[in-house]
Amino acid sequence: MSGKGPTLADALFRPRAVALVGASADPGKNTGRPQRFLRQHGFAGRVLPVNPGRDVVQDVPAYPSVSAAPGPVDHALVMVPAERVPAVIEDCGRAGVPVATLYSDGFADLGTAEGRARQDALLAVAREAGVRLVGPNSMGVMNFATGLTLSVNAVLEMPEIRAGRMSVISQSGSILGSLLSRGAARGFGFSKMVSIGNESDLAVGEVMAMLVDDPETESIVLFLESLRGAGAMAAAARRAHAAGKPVVAYKLGRSPLGQTLAATHSGAMTGDSQVADAFFAAHGIVRVNLFETLLEIPPLLAAAPRERARRVAVMTTTGGGAATVVDRLGELGVETVPAPQALAERLAERNIAVAGKPIVDLTMAGAQRAVFAGALQALLDDPANEAVVVVVGSSGQFHPQLTVEPIAEAWAGERRSKPLAVYIVPEAPASLALLAEHGIAAFRTPESCADAVAALLAWRAPAAGGDAAGPAEDACAAAARALRAAGDHGLDEAAAGAVFAALGVPVAPAVVAAPGDDLAGIEYPVAVKLLSPTVTHKTEVGGVALGVTDAEGVREAMARIREAAAAHGVDAARFLVQSMRRGVGEAIVGFRRDPEVGPLVSVGVGGQLTEIYRDVAVRVAPVDLHTARAMIAEVRGFAPLRGYRGLPRGDLEALAQAVVAVSRLAHVADPAVIEAEINPLLVGAAVEGVHAVDAVIVAA
Amino acid sequence: MSGKGPTLADALFRPRAVALVGASADPGKNTGRPQRFLRQHGFAGRVLPVNPGRDVVQDVPAYPSVSAAPGPVDHALVMVPAERVPAVIEDCGRAGVPVATLYSDGFADLGTAEGRARQDALLAVAREAGVRLVGPNSMGVMNFATGLTLSVNAVLEMPEIRAGRMSVISQSGSILGSLLSRGAARGFGFSKMVSIGNESDLAVGEVMAMLVDDPETESIVLFLESLRGAGAMAAAARRAHAAGKPVVAYKLGRSPLGQTLAATHSGAMTGDSQVADAFFAAHGIVRVNLFETLLEIPPLLAAAPRERARRVAVMTTTGGGAATVVDRLGELGVETVPAPQALAERLAERNIAVAGKPIVDLTMAGAQRAVFAGALQALLDDPANEAVVVVVGSSGQFHPQLTVEPIAEAWAGERRSKPLAVYIVPEAPASLALLAEHGIAAFRTPESCADAVAALLAWRAPAAGGDAAGPAEDACAAAARALRAAGDHGLDEAAAGAVFAALGVPVAPAVVAAPGDDLAGIEYPVAVKLLSPTVTHKTEVGGVALGVTDAEGVREAMARIREAAAAHGVDAARFLVQSMRRGVGEAIVGFRRDPEVGPLVSVGVGGQLTEIYRDVAVRVAPVDLHTARAMIAEVRGFAPLRGYRGLPRGDLEALAQAVVAVSRLAHVADPAVIEAEINPLLVGAAVEGVHAVDAVIVAA
Repeated sequence: MSGKGPTLADALFRPRAVALVGASADPGKNTGRPQRFLRQHGFAGRVLPVNPGRDVVQDVPAYPSVSAAPGPVDHALVMVPAERVPAVIEDCGRAGVPVATLYSDGFADLGTAEGRARQDALLAVAREAGVRLVGPNSMGVMNFATGLTLSVNAVLEMPEIRAGRMSVISQSGSILGSLLSRGAARGFGFSKMVSIGNESDLAVGEVMAMLVDDPETESIVLFLESLRGAGAMAAAARRAHAAGKPVVAYKLGRSPLGQTLAATHSGAMTGDSQVADAFFAAHGIVRVNLFETLLEIPPLLAAAPRERARRVAVMTTTGGGAATVVDRLGELGVETVPAPQALAERLAERNIAVAGKPIVDLTMAGAQRAVFAGALQALLDDPANEAVVVVVGSSGQFHPQLTVEPIAEAWAGERRSKPLAVYIVPEAPASLALLAEHGIAAFRTPESCADAVAALLAWRAPAAGGDAAGPAEDACAAAARALRAAGDHGLDEAAAGAVFAALGVPVAPAVVAAPGDDLAGIEYPVAVKLLSPTVTHKTEVGGVALGVTDAEGVREAMARIREAAAAHGVDAARFLVQSMRRGVGEAIVGFRRDPEVGPLVSVGVGGQLTEIYRDVAVRVAPVDLHTARAMIAEVRGFAPLRGYRGLPRGDLEALAQAVVAVSRLAHVADPAVIEAEINPLLVGAAVEGVHAVDAVIVAA
Repeated sequence: MSGKGPTLADALFRPRAVALVGASADPGKNTGRPQRFLRQHGFAGRVLPVNPGRDVVQDVPAYPSVSAAPGPVDHALVMVPAERVPAVIEDCGRAGVPVATLYSDGFADLGTAEGRARQDALLAVAREAGVRLVGPNSMGVMNFATGLTLSVNAVLEMPEIRAGRMSVISQSGSILGSLLSRGAARGFGFSKMVSIGNESDLAVGEVMAMLVDDPETESIVLFLESLRGAGAMAAAARRAHAAGKPVVAYKLGRSPLGQTLAATHSGAMTGDSQVADAFFAAHGIVRVNLFETLLEIPPLLAAAPRERARRVAVMTTTGGGAATVVDRLGELGVETVPAPQALAERLAERNIAVAGKPIVDLTMAGAQRAVFAGALQALLDDPANEAVVVVVGSSGQFHPQLTVEPIAEAWAGERRSKPLAVYIVPEAPASLALLAEHGIAAFRTPESCADAVAALLAWRAPAAGGDAAGPAEDACAAAARALRAAGDHGLDEAAAGAVFAALGVPVAPAVVAAPGDDLAGIEYPVAVKLLSPTVTHKTEVGGVALGVTDAEGVREAMARIREAAAAHGVDAARFLVQSMRRGVGEAIVGFRRDPEVGPLVSVGVGGQLTEIYRDVAVRVAPVDLHTARAMIAEVRGFAPLRGYRGLPRGDLEALAQAVVAVSRLAHVADPAVIEAEINPLLVGAAVEGVHAVDAVIVAA
């Protein structure tokens, strides 16, 4: 064993020596490839094949075990059948190897209880041995600056691989090959690549944290099937933001079919796509929708994320080509702003009419370099847009000096703070590579260009979590007291109402009463509702009477409910008598703790159509008022309350405050609330506030 | 003048001689390019530069006018300023030139009344001269089999252009360059390309008809900004279907922003994207969503369109790569079917577990040629899927003999009738080209693969138009009589109800009455409604009373309405007394004649949310029952009536019959109905039928 070992990151990415356990003498076999690749790509460290059947493997001395090989060995790649892996890891421990990457599969990836148990047992062995694991079922680890190509991936057959500053972590191993080969064809280089496999030990978050600290990594690209270890991922993403390194994710599971698939493929749980969106947004991760965008977007994220309007300027030498981008931008809710007046006037002198038009179309200028460069500069300088999109026509292929070179020159200047996206309409690999070389975001399809621009405009710094979401300690403490006070009766509607009231949600005034109680002071009309810890759906047992106008009516209602409930075997002894409120609309405000992502708050319109149209806004809780307003703005079904077609506006500001209040449940820890819902929350006409009239809470 | 001239198609695509009017002696200038391109691409016909200032242009004798050039001239390319174009066309007429393609712009493309007037005047000149026009504002006409490159498009700088069997018509000129250069890079060849320009004379439909008759054209690709001349386009598309030639369209205007843009760019009207969808579906045109799909999809459309389930089999050598396609397929409503049992058993013997899984994942087989080929054949043979999607991993780049070649071999066999789509995950231009050579649909991105597969599964033969939609002559004749009978009172609610009843829509029983009329036989409760030709919104003048239970109540209601209406200056003399009906839901059924596409029928859920969620199904009218059912199935808001969450089912079959009945308005010609709507149509519980309770008709 060596003395003081390397850091985990150094062992993983900059090992002095690697052991290839199960290395084949046949360089064409999967298990023979890594040794060949390491040589081909110039890995300078020592390479130690471990193969008990041979003295020499591919012209290099081989050893019967890792511990028999000359140390120090910093990193082992394990390629033996599943049943032999624990022994290899024990041996790695004896040899002081700090980390092993397991190509071996047949663990949790099988999707069986047996596979899962085998993985748990392996992890116990690794912990005991002091060996950290990547995998099982990992396609390997690469660092192109050092030629570390510790992988069986056939993509490493590429004669030369260009090192760059983008690093990738993928939950799918084979995708790394796709990113590498497609990136190479476009002139994109990579720094590190990790196929994270089953994440038995090292998971996305921990490796991401190493990349944040890695001076060679400028941006971090994630290919995700699930949000396993979301907490560590979130923490790493926040550190990446602080370090000025953008994190971009493509996540499977947009469709239920994709969710099923990601689950069967990796044995991981996968969640709702909207929950993933909320997670990414909360922690400053950019989510892209198209696979190719993942590679193309990083240069567009050079400036820090901030609140941006969804407004861009588009200039082009080809109207039709630009329209394919702009049409898609429109679908993604991005608007275009016309040329600033000075530019429009300058172009008008050349008979190019752009004033007021959605695109600055220079087709009539016939791709003149000076006109093109001048217009680009004017748009980059225009504060009215948040980004500039340039769509280059045939000159991109045949006359790059007229359009592509001026773009590169403008970028070399002082105006890098304005995001710039370029789409080249014809096939133009040389121009795309030229732009990549200059660090300019260039796109091969109109759709990926629009996807990236929309993602940029949606990108925000990580949401201020914790107490910064509002000085609501008192409210949270009061809510916790209300939860604890629920006592004998459990968390019935009355108790839930008290909790929401403590959090700051206006609740329709109500008293808990038994037949014969004095109801002095209550405001009529009232609703009379059965309170019972055993009844979840009150109406199904005849437990609700509405529009009761006086004390006599309340007595009658209680008697009726008692009788109806008795028919269902329910003893109705306690009632909620609640003043009725009117609204111009209804909302549902919900809270739940997601097993992966943590506390979430949601808001949607009341009624069944909300579910049918999936028209609910979701965020990681707690949220501030600004975020709550944004949530309400994205619920289409609130259009009537926004004054659609002259309908009376609703008090959406009060609704936003209620969303903030409900989101505070994230802070209530003892007892913790698992799930809660106000349904409905009546939304009054503008400035008339909101009132919770029914609520449910499930606590731990 | 020559004697009997060539056909228009021959003059356009196979001219014996072309005149280049305004040809520049500088081969680098736009107007000098066509002559250079024609030489470069080996055009065998005579090329006649027309330039009054020169005797020789680019080493070829030039002429002062077309009529001064030696005839016969079959096709002129006109590149002079707008004001000189009419004189050139007159001269073409004198020289017996049957068709001129106008690169010149400054006509309707200006988007001004002046430009429009100039174009109208030009067309009059052309008609008088007997010259057909392509353009103005056309980027030209190409036929790659003959080297006819009659265009200024810089893409023709390409040293060599491969001829193929895909022909393109584009409303954007510059897009042709993009398709040509991108196609060339992928090994796709083209037969003809036409930049249709402003469509002052020849429009998409007429040129498409020529391509249907062109033996060198196997598929027709359209890039559209608008549906100008939709009738001719529809007719040509139907002829293309009969000829077994697929027609594929990419149309701008998915977003309102894109619609604005297409309008400003070409001076054309553009419609709602859903109307375009209805148009394409009605006439058997395949619409794609991504630009690149336009080029990639044609081989997938080799089999004829027919009713297909949205079910495909997916096999792969890379789970993550396949998941990117499948996730997207799921978003597009396509399901995957697992491997047939025999294949699953065969693979299980090799420890490859695929039974019941959404993807046939052969990763564990390590890209073995025999396993791969056998699985592919089994899936192509499996009647449970409608198409096979193969996702190829790294072997596509480095070991095509293992996966790509077996695909080509399977295709060379007898199984071409099953559509086959291939997505190659890594960068693999050689494999993509190999597949293209074999006529196999191969895709460069997971998204375009899914786009194409979804479009294939949605593809149907042109809808049976005219009388085939239902033997409803009697109904239409009765409706026309009811329309004509409206007489003095105009098309008020009573008259509209009579028309819908004549068409076959159940209408709630009603009588027209004045105060004091005998109402014997009416079924209570009733609604009493003001009938007035001047009042559109009855409720706004207090013109409706609901739930009236007896004759006395009717008298009172009429008096109340009279008084309220009088306050609005309306004389209420006639009333509709209508038996009230109950439903479990409400629908809106609409009809209108679109200025471009013609008669359309629509169905959605009643209420304001329909509009907010744009949750309406639209088809070209008339429709048959099968289509009406499909329309209802795609309206998400009908989920409650389909039994969502145990809610009472609605009589959706009766609703479908009502949609068919309303769609018959397409056949009612004298007078023609411009717009009609039943709102609401009450949908009763299952088998209880539907009832129109309010209706509006606007006739010519």
